[in-house]
Amino acid sequence: MQTDHEVAVLRYGHRPGRDDRMTTHVGLTARALGADRAIFPDNATQPAETVRDITGRFGGPFAVELREDQSAIVRDWEGTVVHLTMYGLPVQDVEGDVREASTEEPVLIVVGGEKVPWDLYEEADFNVGVTNQPHSEVAGLAVFLDRLFDGEELDQEWEGAERDVIPKATGKKVVDVAGDDVNRPAGAEDGGGDVSEDGTAE
Amino acid sequence: MQTDHEVAVLRYGHRPGRDDRMTTHVGLTARALGADRAIFPDNATQPAETVRDITGRFGGPFAVELREDQSAIVRDWEGTVVHLTMYGLPVQDVEGDVREASTEEPVLIVVGGEKVPWDLYEEADFNVGVTNQPHSEVAGLAVFLDRLFDGEELDQEWEGAERDVIPKATGKKVVDVAGDDVNRPAGAEDGGGDVSEDGTAE
Repeated sequence: MQTDHEVAVLRYGHRPGRDDRMTTHVGLTARALGADRAIFPDNATQPAETVRDITGRFGGPFAVELREDQSAIVRDWEGTVVHLTMYGLPVQDVEGDVREASTEEPVLIVVGGEKVPWDLYEEADFNVGVTNQPHSEVAGLAVFLDRLFDGEELDQEWEGAERDVIPKATGKKVVDVAGDDVNRPAGAEDGGGDVSEDGTAE
Repeated sequence: MQTDHEVAVLRYGHRPGRDDRMTTHVGLTARALGADRAIFPDNATQPAETVRDITGRFGGPFAVELREDQSAIVRDWEGTVVHLTMYGLPVQDVEGDVREASTEEPVLIVVGGEKVPWDLYEEADFNVGVTNQPHSEVAGLAVFLDRLFDGEELDQEWEGAERDVIPKATGKKVVDVAGDDVNRPAGAEDGGGDVSEDGTAE
């Protein structure tokens, strides 16, 4: 989003095949809810491709990077590191501090997939729990971003989109950048390829 | 959560195997973020088992039901029906109306998995988009619940838990109901079975 300092999301760990859909959802959630960049492990090629494809069609700016050394990215990050974990401090108690930090320097949000190394808890400036209950890294990331940006991410504008969804009380309306209606009849594919009709990525 | 009227989450459609993890995350997110009940398609037996297991260990009240006819549940719902879809009206514009409705009658939140029937758009009282971008049904549900409950779900208390996570700035602290520390050394399994160390369900 257009903020003074970058907000990046690091997906820590990825098992090809098994984690493809979760890692894709982490990336798409990061994009949709205001982060500037997703950093995936270098074996997450398929999720990276999907997120780039969605960015190409629905707009940006949003970057996806494949990187080898997750630990070094955290260790060398010049800014604030937030680790989302059910063992951390309540998001409602620390979100103000993180928001303040985000006005001064870049923020890296680390979202675990597989087990994360113990060092991560030490290296993070904030270990943050969106509840202390087991649920979903995608859900935790979503609530954290919505709170970090105080809802402003919901009004962001997208650049370079090929298509635009027009909000409707009932039904679907999708236009291409020229403003033409690209809707199909009810029950047909929405033309989104890997985007299902409810708007989720496959 | 302890509200006057029930909030239930209906997972619409499920493909065993392929959707197990997403449906599980929908259920765990519903539980963690204040819904009272998850309703899964009757072929989602494995996700139902996982969510019930987590509820048994981390507390309730939270119910999981397997039901055959998704369409009938929506059609016959005595209360407000909310359908989360990227084609809907912006959550920030309609959340107040849904919150008001939730003080007067039960709310059913429908979360699509596979393609949902066209009728659903007509039968829903609110078609709601958490952004009009493609991302994740889990992320959309999480933001919607956090806004519906205005953050109060983060402070809810859990009944009948076998274990309790104590928020920490660094590291992990898990106690059993008797208050004994059940932590393991760094790097060891947290004993949570299908809960990974970052708190997400496998």
